[in-house]
Amino acid sequence: MKLYKKAILPSGFSANAVACGLKKSGKLDLALFYSEVPAKAACVFTSNKIQAAPIKVNKRHLKLSKKFRGILVNSGNANAFTGTLGIIDAVSTIQSLANKLDIERKEILVGSTGIIGKRLEVRKIKKAIPDLAGGLKRRSIDKAKKAILTTDTFAKEASVVFYIGKKKITICGVAKGAGMIAPNMATMLAFIFSDADIAQGALNTALKAAVERSFNCITVDGCMSTNDSVMMLANGAAANRPIAAGRDYKFFRTALESVCLELAKLIVRDAEGAGKFIQIKVTQAKSFAEAKKAALAVANSNLFKAAMHGEDPNFGRVACALGASGIDIKEEGLEIRLGPLNKKDINIEVELGMGDACATVYTCDLTPEYVKINAQYN
Amino acid sequence: MKLYKKAILPSGFSANAVACGLKKSGKLDLALFYSEVPAKAACVFTSNKIQAAPIKVNKRHLKLSKKFRGILVNSGNANAFTGTLGIIDAVSTIQSLANKLDIERKEILVGSTGIIGKRLEVRKIKKAIPDLAGGLKRRSIDKAKKAILTTDTFAKEASVVFYIGKKKITICGVAKGAGMIAPNMATMLAFIFSDADIAQGALNTALKAAVERSFNCITVDGCMSTNDSVMMLANGAAANRPIAAGRDYKFFRTALESVCLELAKLIVRDAEGAGKFIQIKVTQAKSFAEAKKAALAVANSNLFKAAMHGEDPNFGRVACALGASGIDIKEEGLEIRLGPLNKKDINIEVELGMGDACATVYTCDLTPEYVKINAQYN
Repeated sequence: MKLYKKAILPSGFSANAVACGLKKSGKLDLALFYSEVPAKAACVFTSNKIQAAPIKVNKRHLKLSKKFRGILVNSGNANAFTGTLGIIDAVSTIQSLANKLDIERKEILVGSTGIIGKRLEVRKIKKAIPDLAGGLKRRSIDKAKKAILTTDTFAKEASVVFYIGKKKITICGVAKGAGMIAPNMATMLAFIFSDADIAQGALNTALKAAVERSFNCITVDGCMSTNDSVMMLANGAAANRPIAAGRDYKFFRTALESVCLELAKLIVRDAEGAGKFIQIKVTQAKSFAEAKKAALAVANSNLFKAAMHGEDPNFGRVACALGASGIDIKEEGLEIRLGPLNKKDINIEVELGMGDACATVYTCDLTPEYVKINAQYN
Repeated sequence: MKLYKKAILPSGFSANAVACGLKKSGKLDLALFYSEVPAKAACVFTSNKIQAAPIKVNKRHLKLSKKFRGILVNSGNANAFTGTLGIIDAVSTIQSLANKLDIERKEILVGSTGIIGKRLEVRKIKKAIPDLAGGLKRRSIDKAKKAILTTDTFAKEASVVFYIGKKKITICGVAKGAGMIAPNMATMLAFIFSDADIAQGALNTALKAAVERSFNCITVDGCMSTNDSVMMLANGAAANRPIAAGRDYKFFRTALESVCLELAKLIVRDAEGAGKFIQIKVTQAKSFAEAKKAALAVANSNLFKAAMHGEDPNFGRVACALGASGIDIKEEGLEIRLGPLNKKDINIEVELGMGDACATVYTCDLTPEYVKINAQYN
């Protein structure tokens, strides 16, 4: 099993991207990911009660269809808080794409990221669809990975290659992050592709588990967006013996988690205004859930994050955050270790002395730059 | 009923403060609040699972004694995360004070604020106690209100005067705030004094209710400290007909809530690095608890707070925070109104369309200055 720090599209997939004019900068803003053969899909969406139009459309498509062919993603506009009109807009763009690709609309998933509360400029997207769908190439993943970005400063990509029997399997992911990253699928989009042949149930479970220990273990500012989604397609083009359980499934899960964790860490590294990458490991907890809750409480504490920015070894702020986290905790059993703070990468270790479960969470420091960037987004 | 924006000690109370050397600046750092006659006490303490030594001592005294005579408060050191030694230190200082005042130790409450995780310099405090206890005066509340401050830029004080029958009752409060202010008694100390004669049960209930709608409705950065306390003494020196229920009790509650709310708002106005004072009113909620939860979710959103700093009318961030708050919410019924943002005071109104309860929460914007101040606290 090997992890590559770049996007290698698996067999049977292609991609493309164009600049359709949603971004005023003229940068790439419309991406298409395409499977030449029908693929199974699994998705994890934001737990925000207000969900953007694309998520509503996707949830419906996941009920209506068992096979998917493509994912259409635009940046520059989140199509969120746009009501029924937002749904009509999203449906209208993918209907155009379905017509062009000669597939059914319900076989397409859709993603949007950018400004909230503004209607999508559907005409611009529709106008660009012939070029977008006409130019699909395997290596254009390198354009597509850029078209999904907003304030990100670099593309997030990762791939894992492994074998089931003699068949080579690839899992490839691209993501966008930047601000407003928190557990429970905060503002981020990730798209994952595999040529593995895997049972639908196994795919769903594997993605859910991988997300729980990767994207849901990162936090930038504790804010959770209306659009966050991890969408995965598996098209079976590797022609491996179908994965359902046992050792093959375990391999697949490990590989998928590696890709997700790599993307998640890249999102934190590129967080808006962040200066430091902070790993918080909580051990000796009663359960994984308690360990994670404790680690996230520290990771979301503005006072802790500001102290990390100032390289101030203020372990009291870690203790404070742990005490306020809501988990069961005793001052006596607690041990806090702060690694060297004058580095770009900082390690925090917390021993709770309550049990034997552990969790690791990734975050960044709070900087004056974060505030400046987020003070003027519109 | 009249609210005064200054501390007017009620009958039978006096105070004093000295600089005992805990603050390197040489500023006042040790305060004593004293009742000439035995007073009833009511307290609300932090819900942080890690509680500072003074809180542990106070909880014990509240069990042991029904009558209190004084509150000893130091700034410069929180005596938190100091284990058993911290308790010994706190007890040792108030034993000194008890000896000097010729009262029992259990009749004294104690408060500390400042750096976490460092042992209290007990010798400095003990050395200062004769001067402190020897110079008690009614008007020295003006020194005491300053001695409890840490990074605050001004003293917080408020008084309400009202009548029960022909007897004049005064409720007076002083507080310290600054950073790390959140609901559930985050880093803040408030001391409230009244000459009212009131039943113990009524006093407890009135204070709890007032705190719930004042100090627990403010948030600066969502962090909750190990020391937060509201301590109240009522000494009966007004010789009013005892308050227990009915109209008199209602009057008392309203007066007490006015004092607490005034102090709470002052804490937000003086929050570390804050540029704006933000009022978030949530109406049409299913319950007060849901309204407050929704309002606090907005108030604690870094993205929202940064947008307010930038005077960016980004209602999407309000919607995002509401959706992630955990309360039941529907996009359709939701109405968000942002008042003019180019002012020092900003009003946000949210109609949830779910019921008829409401709550108001107070917070400030997130500024680069907040980060800078909190990056170098030690």
